[in-house]
Amino acid sequence: MTERPTPETLDRFARIVGEKNAIRDEAEMGPYLTEWRERYRGRTPMVLKPGSTEEVAAILKLASETRTAVVPQGGNTGLVGGQIPFGEEIVLALSRLNRICEVDLGGNTMTVEAGVTLSSAQAAAESAGRLFPLSLASEGSCQIGGNLATNAGGVQVLAYGNARDLTLGLEVVLASGEVWNGLKALRKDNTGYDLKNLFIGSEGTLGVITAATLKLFPQPKEVATAFAGLATLEDAARLFNLAREAAGPALTLFELMPRIGVEMVVNHMGGRDPLSEPHPWYALIDLSAHQEGIATDMLAQIIGRGVGEGFVADAAMPTSLAQAQTLRHLREAMSEAQKFEGGSIKHDVSVPVAAVPAFIAAASAAVERLIPGARTVPFGHFGDGNIHFNVTQPAGADKAAFLARWEEVSEAVHDIVAEMGGSISAEHGVGRMKREEIARRKSPVEMTLMRQIKAALDPRGILNPGKLL
Amino acid sequence: MTERPTPETLDRFARIVGEKNAIRDEAEMGPYLTEWRERYRGRTPMVLKPGSTEEVAAILKLASETRTAVVPQGGNTGLVGGQIPFGEEIVLALSRLNRICEVDLGGNTMTVEAGVTLSSAQAAAESAGRLFPLSLASEGSCQIGGNLATNAGGVQVLAYGNARDLTLGLEVVLASGEVWNGLKALRKDNTGYDLKNLFIGSEGTLGVITAATLKLFPQPKEVATAFAGLATLEDAARLFNLAREAAGPALTLFELMPRIGVEMVVNHMGGRDPLSEPHPWYALIDLSAHQEGIATDMLAQIIGRGVGEGFVADAAMPTSLAQAQTLRHLREAMSEAQKFEGGSIKHDVSVPVAAVPAFIAAASAAVERLIPGARTVPFGHFGDGNIHFNVTQPAGADKAAFLARWEEVSEAVHDIVAEMGGSISAEHGVGRMKREEIARRKSPVEMTLMRQIKAALDPRGILNPGKLL
Repeated sequence: MTERPTPETLDRFARIVGEKNAIRDEAEMGPYLTEWRERYRGRTPMVLKPGSTEEVAAILKLASETRTAVVPQGGNTGLVGGQIPFGEEIVLALSRLNRICEVDLGGNTMTVEAGVTLSSAQAAAESAGRLFPLSLASEGSCQIGGNLATNAGGVQVLAYGNARDLTLGLEVVLASGEVWNGLKALRKDNTGYDLKNLFIGSEGTLGVITAATLKLFPQPKEVATAFAGLATLEDAARLFNLAREAAGPALTLFELMPRIGVEMVVNHMGGRDPLSEPHPWYALIDLSAHQEGIATDMLAQIIGRGVGEGFVADAAMPTSLAQAQTLRHLREAMSEAQKFEGGSIKHDVSVPVAAVPAFIAAASAAVERLIPGARTVPFGHFGDGNIHFNVTQPAGADKAAFLARWEEVSEAVHDIVAEMGGSISAEHGVGRMKREEIARRKSPVEMTLMRQIKAALDPRGILNPGKLL
Repeated sequence: MTERPTPETLDRFARIVGEKNAIRDEAEMGPYLTEWRERYRGRTPMVLKPGSTEEVAAILKLASETRTAVVPQGGNTGLVGGQIPFGEEIVLALSRLNRICEVDLGGNTMTVEAGVTLSSAQAAAESAGRLFPLSLASEGSCQIGGNLATNAGGVQVLAYGNARDLTLGLEVVLASGEVWNGLKALRKDNTGYDLKNLFIGSEGTLGVITAATLKLFPQPKEVATAFAGLATLEDAARLFNLAREAAGPALTLFELMPRIGVEMVVNHMGGRDPLSEPHPWYALIDLSAHQEGIATDMLAQIIGRGVGEGFVADAAMPTSLAQAQTLRHLREAMSEAQKFEGGSIKHDVSVPVAAVPAFIAAASAAVERLIPGARTVPFGHFGDGNIHFNVTQPAGADKAAFLARWEEVSEAVHDIVAEMGGSISAEHGVGRMKREEIARRKSPVEMTLMRQIKAALDPRGILNPGKLL
């Protein structure tokens, strides 16, 4: 459908943004073409760095006219290859659209351009005395536009929702080059189809998000943290249910970690085990309160009851920020720590919350049947039913041979997810990596609906072709 | 595009549901054709009451084949005529799809069919020890399918979100008669376009919702209520900001009422003014807590600070459930109480939260210019920026002559809403009533996007034609 742009077409694109923002040099294009885990290496004739929504609009208008495919790119931190071109597409890097346009303290909203990094957005909120709660490992590099295009999740979804839930309005450049100004700062608006949520999570295949109006929250006055050692996953579920029941929306974090993951962080990433004895599982819990003292008391009561009733084996509650950060480090370093133990086959799945223990048991058994000795490291967002079900190679095994079995292992794990009514991509999206798999696993009715929408909004197929659909 | 069904076609429809569920008798069809405020009276050749998703699917398949237009209908409580047929359409009443399919306590979800009334859904949650927080005046009659088709709001949106935010998954019958099973109970799923949110709020124009998986919440252990008398709208904003800052997500209700509205309830609906002196404005506030005692203390502190700093003139905090219900009655009866004072021109608008005082001031001035002596009764969801800006006729004026100026008054009020970046339908939807107005007020780009989606999903235009678009 699309065509490789001619040199003349590339010159026309370059004139839109100016030569210095149109990169054709191979070396200079490098950072835009390699995904950070090096799973994908792309090729492109040109990287364009527009400086305004108008330039994005002019680029898409020309792309539509010349049938040039376009890959929008934010901080290039995506994990499924959605931001990497195959070869013919031009890359549209949005990093120069990096203005914080407005912070409305009365309305608790913030309007930012797509290229603002997540950490800059968080900082802008904080310096205004507010919280923007989206938080993920790559927050220093990832950009709001990419966060929204992929409906990013992270560690605070439990209390604040994912990127979708944090967005009130969008500005989007359509495939035609027309601009949809949907930058509303409204909490309620029932005047038509939910275009905002259609663009959010569409991975750049329906339009290019250029700005967003985001929700802000009051900053909690107190965040109390606990690190609980647990004998079983069922105990984790009991603790989660108790915390949710007792704390309601004050429960802002409930992350699961396995013993092996904690050991990896202790052994390779400077972690420290805060409990004297090892436990098969751990939960990292935050309660947030808007008045001092409430959260610590409530969390101590919850942990106390868990210990009393026997479903919490041991627990630590930090008394300083430094101690709390040490605990947080155990969770945050868990993904990276795995690479020191060889190959890791990763899954980002979700199941109904109550099914998490059964899922981990079934998936672990399936992996052990396929690759005896493989070490499962299931961790993550227990309270959302979202587990990063990672599998580290057997100790001393050949890394390449292990990684060669990725598809086979994934198929087994995803089959279990599917049986449980789960999702094979809870937060990372589809991109290039899971595109064929969703076509296989979703119903024909659902795939047809998605293709109809794609055809309606991008009839020439210029927007991120070969991704998602 | 659609055609009036022939007698033979009607017989075919009747055979799908059985004769006793295919109503053709004028008198029997009456309740399906009249909107409760009698603003719309519809006509239809037939009301069909399917008993299963399969029957809904068969009806839409036949409708598509015969180009018969279909109006889906829930509890017939909509306020914009979306559920009323013009004459050629058959009515698809979903009330027989009234099963509570599943309550998952571990996962905090509930799956119900579309015809379950909102109060039945609330009761099913409550009897399982959970809260389903959607709550609105018509909850005894309105149905979940209609709530979702219109993205219903209500009084607890501030803390729990609107119908959209409370829904995890949907089952939808498409125009073709195919069934999309999107009944997932997942908190996170990033595998493609957000079809769920596209159907929610589409007012039956893209598909017929037949079942939904909904979020449940822990029941608060304590709900503390206060009724505050306020001198100005700016004071209301200060109180709201303080409550939000101090209570965070524990602030579950913040409703605004004007003196005149309280008087109407006192005079006509058995209300009792809990404060000894009159005040120009009132706020009804709820804080919810998951441990006893916290909410009352916190709310008393907030009110105390407001009184101390002079932005709360007086306040009452009930000490019994009966007292709290008396306060709640002032708010709940405010809509109905207006009819005792003659004609009322109603608006359901939203603006950015911080702009509410300026909006009410500007809109009131505009109304006074148009109809001197008209009595504005702006009330509602202050914390969402959503005001029911109602206008009661001047005392002793001619009702019909006053109501004849509806369009003119609305135009002036909506112009102010538009200037402030607001919405002319915050929660009631578009339906028949605001269809032409949104086409005029939205950008051509946005209208085109909506029409493209409609054409893609309902190419024959059989689903609720003449509504929304």
